[in-house]
Amino acid sequence: MGTPNNTGGGEENGVMMKVVTGPGGYILQDVPHLTDYIPDLPTHPNPLRSNPAYSVVKQYFVHMDDTVPQKVVVHKDSPRGIHFRRAGPRQKVYFKSDDVSACIVTCGGLCPGLNTVIREIVHSLDYMYGVNKVLGIDGGYRGFYSKNTIRLTPKTVNDIHKRGGTILGTSRGGHDTSKIVDSIQDRGINQVYIIGGDGTQKGAAAIYKEVRRRGLKVAVAGIPKTIDNDIPVVDRSFGFDTAVEEAQRAINAAHVEAESAENGIGVVKLMGRYCGFIAQYATLASRDVDCCLIPESPFYLEGKGGLFEFVEKCLKENGHMVIVIAEGAGQELLAESGHANDEQDASGNKLLQDVGLWISQKIKDYFAKQRKMAITLKYIDPTYMIRAIPSNASDNVYCTLLAQSAVHGAMAGYTGFTSGLVHGRHTYIPFNRIIETQNKVVITDRMWARLLSSTNQPSFLGPNAIVEAKKEEPPETQLLDDDGANSGNGDTGNHKIEARDT
Amino acid sequence: MGTPNNTGGGEENGVMMKVVTGPGGYILQDVPHLTDYIPDLPTHPNPLRSNPAYSVVKQYFVHMDDTVPQKVVVHKDSPRGIHFRRAGPRQKVYFKSDDVSACIVTCGGLCPGLNTVIREIVHSLDYMYGVNKVLGIDGGYRGFYSKNTIRLTPKTVNDIHKRGGTILGTSRGGHDTSKIVDSIQDRGINQVYIIGGDGTQKGAAAIYKEVRRRGLKVAVAGIPKTIDNDIPVVDRSFGFDTAVEEAQRAINAAHVEAESAENGIGVVKLMGRYCGFIAQYATLASRDVDCCLIPESPFYLEGKGGLFEFVEKCLKENGHMVIVIAEGAGQELLAESGHANDEQDASGNKLLQDVGLWISQKIKDYFAKQRKMAITLKYIDPTYMIRAIPSNASDNVYCTLLAQSAVHGAMAGYTGFTSGLVHGRHTYIPFNRIIETQNKVVITDRMWARLLSSTNQPSFLGPNAIVEAKKEEPPETQLLDDDGANSGNGDTGNHKIEARDT
Amino acid sequence: MGTPNNTGGGEENGVMMKVVTGPGGYILQDVPHLTDYIPDLPTHPNPLRSNPAYSVVKQYFVHMDDTVPQKVVVHKDSPRGIHFRRAGPRQKVYFKSDDVSACIVTCGGLCPGLNTVIREIVHSLDYMYGVNKVLGIDGGYRGFYSKNTIRLTPKTVNDIHKRGGTILGTSRGGHDTSKIVDSIQDRGINQVYIIGGDGTQKGAAAIYKEVRRRGLKVAVAGIPKTIDNDIPVVDRSFGFDTAVEEAQRAINAAHVEAESAENGIGVVKLMGRYCGFIAQYATLASRDVDCCLIPESPFYLEGKGGLFEFVEKCLKENGHMVIVIAEGAGQELLAESGHANDEQDASGNKLLQDVGLWISQKIKDYFAKQRKMAITLKYIDPTYMIRAIPSNASDNVYCTLLAQSAVHGAMAGYTGFTSGLVHGRHTYIPFNRIIETQNKVVITDRMWARLLSSTNQPSFLGPNAIVEAKKEEPPETQLLDDDGANSGNGDTGNHKIEARDT
Amino acid sequence: MGTPNNTGGGEENGVMMKVVTGPGGYILQDVPHLTDYIPDLPTHPNPLRSNPAYSVVKQYFVHMDDTVPQKVVVHKDSPRGIHFRRAGPRQKVYFKSDDVSACIVTCGGLCPGLNTVIREIVHSLDYMYGVNKVLGIDGGYRGFYSKNTIRLTPKTVNDIHKRGGTILGTSRGGHDTSKIVDSIQDRGINQVYIIGGDGTQKGAAAIYKEVRRRGLKVAVAGIPKTIDNDIPVVDRSFGFDTAVEEAQRAINAAHVEAESAENGIGVVKLMGRYCGFIAQYATLASRDVDCCLIPESPFYLEGKGGLFEFVEKCLKENGHMVIVIAEGAGQELLAESGHANDEQDASGNKLLQDVGLWISQKIKDYFAKQRKMAITLKYIDPTYMIRAIPSNASDNVYCTLLAQSAVHGAMAGYTGFTSGLVHGRHTYIPFNRIIETQNKVVITDRMWARLLSSTNQPSFLGPNAIVEAKKEEPPETQLLDDDGANSGNGDTGNHKIEARDT
Repeated sequence: MGTPNNTGGGEENGVMMKVVTGPGGYILQDVPHLTDYIPDLPTHPNPLRSNPAYSVVKQYFVHMDDTVPQKVVVHKDSPRGIHFRRAGPRQKVYFKSDDVSACIVTCGGLCPGLNTVIREIVHSLDYMYGVNKVLGIDGGYRGFYSKNTIRLTPKTVNDIHKRGGTILGTSRGGHDTSKIVDSIQDRGINQVYIIGGDGTQKGAAAIYKEVRRRGLKVAVAGIPKTIDNDIPVVDRSFGFDTAVEEAQRAINAAHVEAESAENGIGVVKLMGRYCGFIAQYATLASRDVDCCLIPESPFYLEGKGGLFEFVEKCLKENGHMVIVIAEGAGQELLAESGHANDEQDASGNKLLQDVGLWISQKIKDYFAKQRKMAITLKYIDPTYMIRAIPSNASDNVYCTLLAQSAVHGAMAGYTGFTSGLVHGRHTYIPFNRIIETQNKVVITDRMWARLLSSTNQPSFLGPNAIVEAKKEEPPETQLLDDDGANSGNGDTGNHKIEARDT
Repeated sequence: MGTPNNTGGGEENGVMMKVVTGPGGYILQDVPHLTDYIPDLPTHPNPLRSNPAYSVVKQYFVHMDDTVPQKVVVHKDSPRGIHFRRAGPRQKVYFKSDDVSACIVTCGGLCPGLNTVIREIVHSLDYMYGVNKVLGIDGGYRGFYSKNTIRLTPKTVNDIHKRGGTILGTSRGGHDTSKIVDSIQDRGINQVYIIGGDGTQKGAAAIYKEVRRRGLKVAVAGIPKTIDNDIPVVDRSFGFDTAVEEAQRAINAAHVEAESAENGIGVVKLMGRYCGFIAQYATLASRDVDCCLIPESPFYLEGKGGLFEFVEKCLKENGHMVIVIAEGAGQELLAESGHANDEQDASGNKLLQDVGLWISQKIKDYFAKQRKMAITLKYIDPTYMIRAIPSNASDNVYCTLLAQSAVHGAMAGYTGFTSGLVHGRHTYIPFNRIIETQNKVVITDRMWARLLSSTNQPSFLGPNAIVEAKKEEPPETQLLDDDGANSGNGDTGNHKIEARDT
Repeated sequence: MGTPNNTGGGEENGVMMKVVTGPGGYILQDVPHLTDYIPDLPTHPNPLRSNPAYSVVKQYFVHMDDTVPQKVVVHKDSPRGIHFRRAGPRQKVYFKSDDVSACIVTCGGLCPGLNTVIREIVHSLDYMYGVNKVLGIDGGYRGFYSKNTIRLTPKTVNDIHKRGGTILGTSRGGHDTSKIVDSIQDRGINQVYIIGGDGTQKGAAAIYKEVRRRGLKVAVAGIPKTIDNDIPVVDRSFGFDTAVEEAQRAINAAHVEAESAENGIGVVKLMGRYCGFIAQYATLASRDVDCCLIPESPFYLEGKGGLFEFVEKCLKENGHMVIVIAEGAGQELLAESGHANDEQDASGNKLLQDVGLWISQKIKDYFAKQRKMAITLKYIDPTYMIRAIPSNASDNVYCTLLAQSAVHGAMAGYTGFTSGLVHGRHTYIPFNRIIETQNKVVITDRMWARLLSSTNQPSFLGPNAIVEAKKEEPPETQLLDDDGANSGNGDTGNHKIEARDT
Repeated sequence: MGTPNNTGGGEENGVMMKVVTGPGGYILQDVPHLTDYIPDLPTHPNPLRSNPAYSVVKQYFVHMDDTVPQKVVVHKDSPRGIHFRRAGPRQKVYFKSDDVSACIVTCGGLCPGLNTVIREIVHSLDYMYGVNKVLGIDGGYRGFYSKNTIRLTPKTVNDIHKRGGTILGTSRGGHDTSKIVDSIQDRGINQVYIIGGDGTQKGAAAIYKEVRRRGLKVAVAGIPKTIDNDIPVVDRSFGFDTAVEEAQRAINAAHVEAESAENGIGVVKLMGRYCGFIAQYATLASRDVDCCLIPESPFYLEGKGGLFEFVEKCLKENGHMVIVIAEGAGQELLAESGHANDEQDASGNKLLQDVGLWISQKIKDYFAKQRKMAITLKYIDPTYMIRAIPSNASDNVYCTLLAQSAVHGAMAGYTGFTSGLVHGRHTYIPFNRIIETQNKVVITDRMWARLLSSTNQPSFLGPNAIVEAKKEEPPETQLLDDDGANSGNGDTGNHKIEARDT
């Protein structure tokens, strides 16, 4: 694995990420490898060498120097910046096929594509690497120590990508690192594939560290799952595209209801606990939405420039309106209204009040009491109807490649990594890059401006708030003017899905 | 527009593309600008400055130095390579809103998203730039001189994105550069938006050159349209995602028909005149396909390693099989069979024999006559059912951004460019980069290997052919080993859609 | 109109319905006619005589003696029973095409197919009868006196059947008979088409009576609309089929959510204020439902044979369950819980508490507090997503024929009638037969038994309740034992949709 | 089984059908019963007596006198006419649950709903009657003697209704009565459920007769399957509703293609070998069709009143048109053109030339050669995409009840019957009523007139042809004037689906 010029900060960081630098400001944030803590591991030729499907591939294996830059908007004189290791099969693998005992676990809420990822890990292990010991962990993390496992074969998973949900079952929380690693040892598992969101990937990082502490030859690979698309660094999370597509149904229905009534208002709540990507893209795709409210963009109800005023303006001009609201929007307003909720779910997510019901009631009250104006408001919450559908074709292909990348990585001895798409290229990303921050809609970015322009809604920000918003992420480098979103640290940002900022 | 260090080859290339170089092997292939041939054009402040939707955008306008690299798989010491100019609004525009008279034309076959592009050009011109003189050219290129135009307003195009097809009508051919530019002059048009495929963009390049020759202040912007996804350089073409999604229906049907019969064979013909992207991605997304045949991968019918042998093997093992065939596959076999066709359609595309009907008959004959084996073959051609649907959410957002980029570019005085997505970033690409080659599936690339691996079909290549295939695109640079697909010239390749090679 | 042997009870009934008797127990419940109160009305030949489309029709016009029996399960010696007048074009019409001034109004909640009915009334009047004065009343009954009308032409309504909702707008209540009939007179309207539910048809009956009282030559025709399918006598109401189809999505999602969690429960609330038809048929069509709760079948929560016990049993046996609940189910339990609501909406419908939210909370509380058992419950309310979709093909054809029948009837001088399908035949039914009762699921009928059998849910009835249920509708005739549903009065019953009791 | 007043014609008829007469012209065409040829068969109480789901059913069992009339349009003095025995559970059954050994076979082409019927037969036998010996015959009739059988359990068939096709496989032909009955005897099968079309039901009748000849206690029950809806007597065949719905996609696509081209013509071929029901109802539901061609309505191409003239008129008036053509339409024209085909498929169906390709070519030739007019014609054949989808909700419920009726009938000792819906009531119909004729669109009926009126197409009949058409089915009774369609024999006719003639 060469001798990385590790510039990372301290022991902890060195465990999570290996930093290599190069000319022109080139930085590689590399993922850990089993050989980092187990010396003298034997290697084996990659079985793909003799796979007929790969016999025409000009270059069977990813070059060990291939990397992908995190930033692609550059100037003539830009430093080259952060890069990630390219995913794909390697010349040599660190596991013999017969010795591999893999397991797969799915955690957290449902998301289109979970079954496709499961299917493809099983198929890749079997068809590409001849591995046929694959266990499914039943019902999330706690399944490691409280439940029986499920034997997974290419045949048993063959049709599951046509179904929504996860055949393994899922749950929130239930993470006990020590018990889980005990279970991994007890069962003789040496490849762990963990599919889940932010909290789950934190758990995966903890498992990786404990595995490493114990000196086990166990590769830990994460596949980030979040329907909200709030995983940083990667282009988009699987299932997001399907979710935006399916959200169109609810918006269409809200539009029809609103149009058919006098002063009709359709309110649609969409997923997005801390970020408004689904709301934003569903709004942009639909063109029937008059107002989109997301967690990142604060708003207020009363007075000049407030939501009520805008609603009334829409009704007067068009006779109806459609509002899309992300589930995490306006939580500070609910808190003020005494609707706050300090409880958390088992994943540690704050339990949110239903902002859709709340805002619907607020709007009804306003028009009934303050304006004495008859309105007809219909509220639609399609959340579970969206989460539970099978992934569309685009997400199916995407899930396939994420799964294959994870398998190639684990076989090649990488560990403590997630499989992720960066600028359309599959890469291995260190856990800490994924779990440190969350991706958010950048409201000082052109993509959000486009949305405002398409809905004609006000920004709901006073002049001061605008100044503040612009300040929030002070530029660090010469480049940050190129893309408001990317400024601060170069890895939050708006460039999260294919149809991102220009 | 600065003083480009134009290294392009000769006058012709200088007209089509301005090449700028920088440190570390940085190359910018820049698009033309009205000021290249009309000096002293006055500029105006961009009206977006005062647009409330953009008031929170930290950096209103794209930095004039922003560029996007064509290659993103790099090594520590790689040269930086070719870049394209980033799309987006500029500080200054070269048209006063009241002076703009724009027109839109759609050419060639239907593709999901045409209406969304039309809608968004009209909306962008009006809402962003205050332009309200927009004409629709009726029925493709020949509509410029043989038909009346259609007045387009935000209201008349408001709902068209929910319909398939193009409200402007379309046709093949009909290109008479001189007459078209006459018509542009006669009508006082100064922004021309041309939506169409390969042939159409060649026509657009010719119009741009004639406009330039006449010294007219007319911006010519292309938006590449090809359901086949064979436009080079760009990540993918709009409508492709929708097409792959819709193709699943036909594959599912073929699978059901095949499974319900003894020795059942389902054959699905998909679009792809010269390239097999739709067939490839529809196959990867579906997982029900046993054999995928594309123009890029020659195959043969009889004998060892041939198609008939593989079909028989599938029937014996599974009792049924599904074949997906791109319309342009196997044309050399049809030619041998005397089914060749030298005619061309009005776009200059070779008129292909229906390879789906042909191969179906061949398979039937083989089993009836040579094997005396009863089979049941069902042939499905979903082409027009796929082309005619409205674009899905993902393509809707994509079309919106393509249209907005084109409008920003034309307003900023760029001309002779197409709007295109490169690694998830919207860019302006010189016409010649788009029309010189066609994007193809690279069969020596891992993406195709993945397909072979998922279908278990043979490569249909003998050992010699494999050697030839590998030779075909000899590496030019140190990098080309990183990605078989990208080798040759760095811009064909498999990295054409979001879920591309790892 | 002959001399009906009117055996109806008293003046009131004579106004609403004309009863004719015949041999073998034959009874015709005939609809009113303009000539009943306006003597000597001139007639005109039906313009369809010269319509080329009808030139091959063997018998242009419905025979004036054609009737359709209400009961079709008969014995060798059964009396013939109640019949309705067959709908269709008549030899003579009572309006000259140029003299007709028609109006259409839609009232109450949305239902798939409203726009198709509107479209087809306009088209039928124009293409069949040459009538081109058709007004749309804006926003329900109150639109007659508080709003402008909308001119409807075949062209303006041409594509509306592809959209959900109603282009006329709708509202609840707003019925002021006197003002409405004033408005009808003022505007010179002489054909009134009223599309709406139970309350709306009562309003239509009142309009008809007032029109008759004033002696106006105005035909009043109703087209019953209720997504709940609770209109008596007719086979089914339009939109019901579409609603049952669309409800499958929500049930599928609930099933996926439930299956993916440990002790997962999916709860789906479906429309059905007073009757459970949508819940029942959606359950029968889906086969993924473990418990279906409807207004007609009381249930209780605690104790032996109660809902909680059954839920726990399901979770123990299968690990998950799906519950479908009609919005009107369990209202007596909510009342006991202090959740009752005595308010009414503008249509006079009791405002129901959301039984879905209520039952979800009750189940959560039970397992959390009483059983200390972790469950995961997901609640889905697809109501507005179902109501707002366009009608499916089957409902499209059905709406077309309902509309045509109404137009034929009005042109033929019938009034005070609704257009309705009886055993697959279109008929004219007196208002009072439609508005006196509501169709309900008969829980002592085999169709409900089938549902119980498919879900394996208990009847939630104690032995006494069963005896009571059986007593409720004592047989009147020898026949009623043949079909539990039809017993009592011969017109409630389960034979409301095509796939009704055997 | 009483002493039927058998008025049927001769021994043969007596075997197939038992005719009972009653007062007022009442005729019952009853189905055979095992006791007709096996005297002294013991009976057993129906196990449904103790089924909790049925405990609330007021009248568990169908009254043995319940019948359903074939005609429901009646006059005051009409004779009562033909009736069928009502389907449903009987007080006594002729099989002990443990003794039942059932088998299911599916024959002929695919049709939505096949898997639902299979599932529900298995479930009904098990859950209602405690029968758990159910075999699936693999691959149609010939599977009886050439293949292994498949054991069917409620669990193995639990999810199959969500898939298209038939899990049993199907084939055409392969009927060898003697071998089949040998196989039935050898395997000890005593209930045979046969799902298939016209030819299949003829085969079922032959099996029944052979079983009877051998004196076997084997109940033979048919479930008629024909996507074309050409089964006489019954309201509609299962899958038809789904097919009409799915056909909308193809029509929409054709419409979009036609509208987007100058002189655009979209041609859609739909199923309908001998009858045009799918074409007719798909046309009525869509409203985008300008011309619908069916086997029942002859047409001609050239000259005044011909198809070419009409196409040209449409193009001139609207610039585009959509043609729907049933596969069996215009076969006499193909024959004249020398495209006739005297071959038959294994089911004995005449192998038809592809009329869609033929008519498309004819139209292209006409405009190219005779009119020198550029047109763009797109041809869509969605046949296999329609056949292979799962049944919609409405068909799912319908298939369930058909299957349950068949099971109730066989358990009750009836044999030689098909399960069929008549005026919304499930009945048992003698085989000979089903197989003697085929249901056809009656072009002298109002339903066809409605179609002509909605498309504005000419009747393509000269005055003489009209006279002939009207003559074709001379009235026999006073009634037949009431409904052109029903005239002749009272059981062909237009009343075949729910939205049938008024």
